[in-house]
Amino acid sequence: MKKSLLSNINNPTDLRLLDEAQLPQVAQELRDFIIDIVAVKEGHLGASLGVIELTIALHYVFDTPNDLLIWDVGHQAYGHKILTGRRENFHTNRQLGGISGFPKRSESNYDTFGVGHSSTSISAALGMAIASNLKGDFNKHHIAIIGDASIASGMAFEGLNHAGVTDANLLVILNDNAIGIDPSVGALKQYLTAVKEGKNPRQNNMIKSLNFDYSGPIDGHDVFAVIKELKRLQKIKGPKFLHLITTKGKGLQQAEEDQVKYHAPGKFDAATGEIITKQEQNLPPKYQDVFGLTVLDLARKNDKIIGITPAMPSGSSLKFMMDAFPERAFDVGIAEQHAVTLAAGMATQGMIVYCNIYSTFLQRAYDQIIHDVALQNLPVIFCLDRAGLVGEDGATHHGVFDIAYLRCIPNLIVYAPRNEIELQNILYTAQLGLENPIAIRYPRGRGVINNWQEKHLSHYDAIPIGVSSCIVSGTRVAVLSNGTIGNNVTLALAKIKKTNTIAHHDFPFVKPLDEKSLHQIFSQFDSIITLEDGTVKGGFGSAVIEFAANNNYKSQITVLGIPDEFIEHGTVTELQQYCKIDVSSLEKLFSNY
Amino acid sequence: MKKSLLSNINNPTDLRLLDEAQLPQVAQELRDFIIDIVAVKEGHLGASLGVIELTIALHYVFDTPNDLLIWDVGHQAYGHKILTGRRENFHTNRQLGGISGFPKRSESNYDTFGVGHSSTSISAALGMAIASNLKGDFNKHHIAIIGDASIASGMAFEGLNHAGVTDANLLVILNDNAIGIDPSVGALKQYLTAVKEGKNPRQNNMIKSLNFDYSGPIDGHDVFAVIKELKRLQKIKGPKFLHLITTKGKGLQQAEEDQVKYHAPGKFDAATGEIITKQEQNLPPKYQDVFGLTVLDLARKNDKIIGITPAMPSGSSLKFMMDAFPERAFDVGIAEQHAVTLAAGMATQGMIVYCNIYSTFLQRAYDQIIHDVALQNLPVIFCLDRAGLVGEDGATHHGVFDIAYLRCIPNLIVYAPRNEIELQNILYTAQLGLENPIAIRYPRGRGVINNWQEKHLSHYDAIPIGVSSCIVSGTRVAVLSNGTIGNNVTLALAKIKKTNTIAHHDFPFVKPLDEKSLHQIFSQFDSIITLEDGTVKGGFGSAVIEFAANNNYKSQITVLGIPDEFIEHGTVTELQQYCKIDVSSLEKLFSNY
Repeated sequence: MKKSLLSNINNPTDLRLLDEAQLPQVAQELRDFIIDIVAVKEGHLGASLGVIELTIALHYVFDTPNDLLIWDVGHQAYGHKILTGRRENFHTNRQLGGISGFPKRSESNYDTFGVGHSSTSISAALGMAIASNLKGDFNKHHIAIIGDASIASGMAFEGLNHAGVTDANLLVILNDNAIGIDPSVGALKQYLTAVKEGKNPRQNNMIKSLNFDYSGPIDGHDVFAVIKELKRLQKIKGPKFLHLITTKGKGLQQAEEDQVKYHAPGKFDAATGEIITKQEQNLPPKYQDVFGLTVLDLARKNDKIIGITPAMPSGSSLKFMMDAFPERAFDVGIAEQHAVTLAAGMATQGMIVYCNIYSTFLQRAYDQIIHDVALQNLPVIFCLDRAGLVGEDGATHHGVFDIAYLRCIPNLIVYAPRNEIELQNILYTAQLGLENPIAIRYPRGRGVINNWQEKHLSHYDAIPIGVSSCIVSGTRVAVLSNGTIGNNVTLALAKIKKTNTIAHHDFPFVKPLDEKSLHQIFSQFDSIITLEDGTVKGGFGSAVIEFAANNNYKSQITVLGIPDEFIEHGTVTELQQYCKIDVSSLEKLFSNY
Repeated sequence: MKKSLLSNINNPTDLRLLDEAQLPQVAQELRDFIIDIVAVKEGHLGASLGVIELTIALHYVFDTPNDLLIWDVGHQAYGHKILTGRRENFHTNRQLGGISGFPKRSESNYDTFGVGHSSTSISAALGMAIASNLKGDFNKHHIAIIGDASIASGMAFEGLNHAGVTDANLLVILNDNAIGIDPSVGALKQYLTAVKEGKNPRQNNMIKSLNFDYSGPIDGHDVFAVIKELKRLQKIKGPKFLHLITTKGKGLQQAEEDQVKYHAPGKFDAATGEIITKQEQNLPPKYQDVFGLTVLDLARKNDKIIGITPAMPSGSSLKFMMDAFPERAFDVGIAEQHAVTLAAGMATQGMIVYCNIYSTFLQRAYDQIIHDVALQNLPVIFCLDRAGLVGEDGATHHGVFDIAYLRCIPNLIVYAPRNEIELQNILYTAQLGLENPIAIRYPRGRGVINNWQEKHLSHYDAIPIGVSSCIVSGTRVAVLSNGTIGNNVTLALAKIKKTNTIAHHDFPFVKPLDEKSLHQIFSQFDSIITLEDGTVKGGFGSAVIEFAANNNYKSQITVLGIPDEFIEHGTVTELQQYCKIDVSSLEKLFSNY
């Protein structure tokens, strides 16, 4: 058995002491290390396995951290983390208090730019490169590593378009594996595929059209070839572009063969690669499946229904409709801006469009919601998956700002269902002929109703717009909750023995508010508690406070939600505890009344 | 003298009755008509003059409104409006109650998609084209007309990238005049220029790489050539791209020669083209110039200062710094997302970046503010020009959501100066070493201080973060104003004769709030009025209400600001009256106390 090399690499300087011939062994050990830990601790697998050789080559050739590596998205940075001082902590990946699943500036000076959302790397690296030029440091290297799914996003194009007219010392490395989380789409992807297959003569080069020095495509798993090319590029000034061909999941057969499933496979057997199926019988459904199955069911009955996802067919479960009605369900790639305005264009022609975008990614299309949809009052149906706290993905991915940033938009209905039935019913209601656009937010993970699909799917009730409901009556305090976090209220009330003191109202509509019910509630109660899994600055609680101020009610109002700070990673329950909106915190609070 | 043709064209059907040989006369009359009215009534001039022949050709060849024209941005749609039933109303352009300066769905069924912000046309047209296919209407034409500045924005690329893998009946017409409001920039612009100059062989075509059927470049002022090509393209299915070369301001010599000034020249002599200079001696400065001159002054003293504008060097007055320090001041084109993350990248390297983006356009970079700047707490200085009501540009351009959408972001300081001195002082303060990013919002138009530049520029005082100030003391009600709208309070107080009843406090910081002063104010006053020129949903007033609720104060709070609806076009004063935040409305309100 060979002596381990990886266990002696505590930083890239150690790596650089090795002979080039030893690097394939380092690659094998690094792969095994990642597989062994992710198999048990879970996390993103395929992306990091695909860039093992590139990661080693970059740290071997360049003078990191003086030279700056910027990983786009950051799913793929596990190898980078392990080689840059975090090998011993890697088992804490994505856990509360542990290292982040993404590059993060506060974690290491090798992490030059925090990521999580895609397509930021070229702009960030260009900013750094321009700064270096201004500081007179003309030998520093600034390297953006970006995938073929991410480079198709508009923001990446904007970065390339600017970089091409600068003399910035920028190297863009395209990690082309033809897949993001789901397979890549679009004309650029077709073009890149043609390049790989040798169908495009070099002189017909889109990247060269943007003034980049293009090289490639080369095999990204040949560490010697990558090193040789990086050393050549190291000597060239100005904007450069290296096209690498890699395989997502490289080195684990199942991960190579089912790249979508092994993007983040959960626990699996490190030796065999087999995913460990949890014993999950009669569990409530995932909210994403309630969306996916309901929209499929509705689409069967109404041929005006269209589904759109920006690069999340699996994650959103729009996949169900895409399989059944490929002509009416669209994966547009990582292009949230386009997704929203495409939906608006379709809506002008009478189509009923379900535009499904994770809450945190809808931030990318904020102007399009205001300017293209709400201003024209086009009845697009926005489905915001992963709203609220998302858990282990952490600060970059929590969908906690949406209520605040959507509530200020005129014409827009903002709704959060409390459970699976409310979600399916609002999806049904939305296609009955709403006169306004609507945003429907629901969380990551599972609901609360066993056998939902068998018992409830296809049995719809229309939801009256702007109406709340009283779940529990009470005398001393009224709890107004928005969305699924309201289930914590139900659980907390079940734990305390008091009866009749605490009322619980479900306010699924943040906008329009149920003012009729609010008048009754404020007339009756001196104490009001609002609860949401969004920021307390400008969210649902603020809407209730605004109502009280406008109507001169003097009840004491306590607003519970996400505090005004970025929330780190951990399980959803741990993070709810931190925010004091978990069942135990509510139980404790309620026991005061 | 020839008989007028234009006066008999009430819709495109009338146009289509003419012989092709008569169209140059229509073009001449249409140009003259626009020049005569815009000379007196003001508006956007150059863009529409540049597409006269194209506009005529489109309505002549295609079956509008059944075929769908989508004008990008919409500056250039005056000819379109005049030919589609709005000739007689064209003199009301941009006036309160008159027609909009941009295409608008509620105004005409020839206006298929409301615009104002750039780069939406391809996505919208593609959505319409896909809808037509689904409805079985395979002969309908969907035509996006987009300029070379707008097509360089990431959103347009996203639209092209998707369209290229569809069979949508989409025609993208590139109106290539090498200028937006300011001259176009970027690698794509260089590429297009090379194409125009015949330096790029046809086979090396970026647009073809995206699977479009490319034709051109052709002379966009040769109406016969344009018609011939449109008729040819009319018969081709799938995504098509026509590259037209035009001259902005075509037909008015001065407008062709000074395209930046004649984009929206104000009043001018229709016969000579000479701009009518207003008698404006000793007027207060424009806020944009306070920004531009101050940043230039600061940049002279600190070589770490960088300026960034996405395509608004003239409008933001960053032009001053670009002329003096071209290596440190960047026009990145219409690329707000890139602008913000570029700034973040520079900030990681210790640069002090003033990123100037109009409030309404910052909506395009919302995710980048959250994810790339605030989450990493990088001290980027956002300068939001055109915040609040902007007047004649109307609903698409008012910067009224920024306080609400920025206030919910952790780490971010949100500031609005009351006057020129506060603006220059906060710009000075921001480069002293802030630990947080800051957003500084200020309005379109002029300030309130005569001879500001001579008396005040270069004389700086540091502003303590999070501190408000008492401008007028009073006994019965406290008015808390944010930003320049506070000057309306001053004017209203000067008009009413009462003394000592109404206190006026300037709260320039929306975040962090001056809680110390708020405690004093709420302890003293039973009635509080807040005033801002942003939406009342989630803005400054909401912040004050949240403070009161959190601290259990029972004072009555009246929130004044922009109501929860989209505000149309008109003068700023007229729109303030509509929102009841003008001087007279305040005077009337104050007289109750």
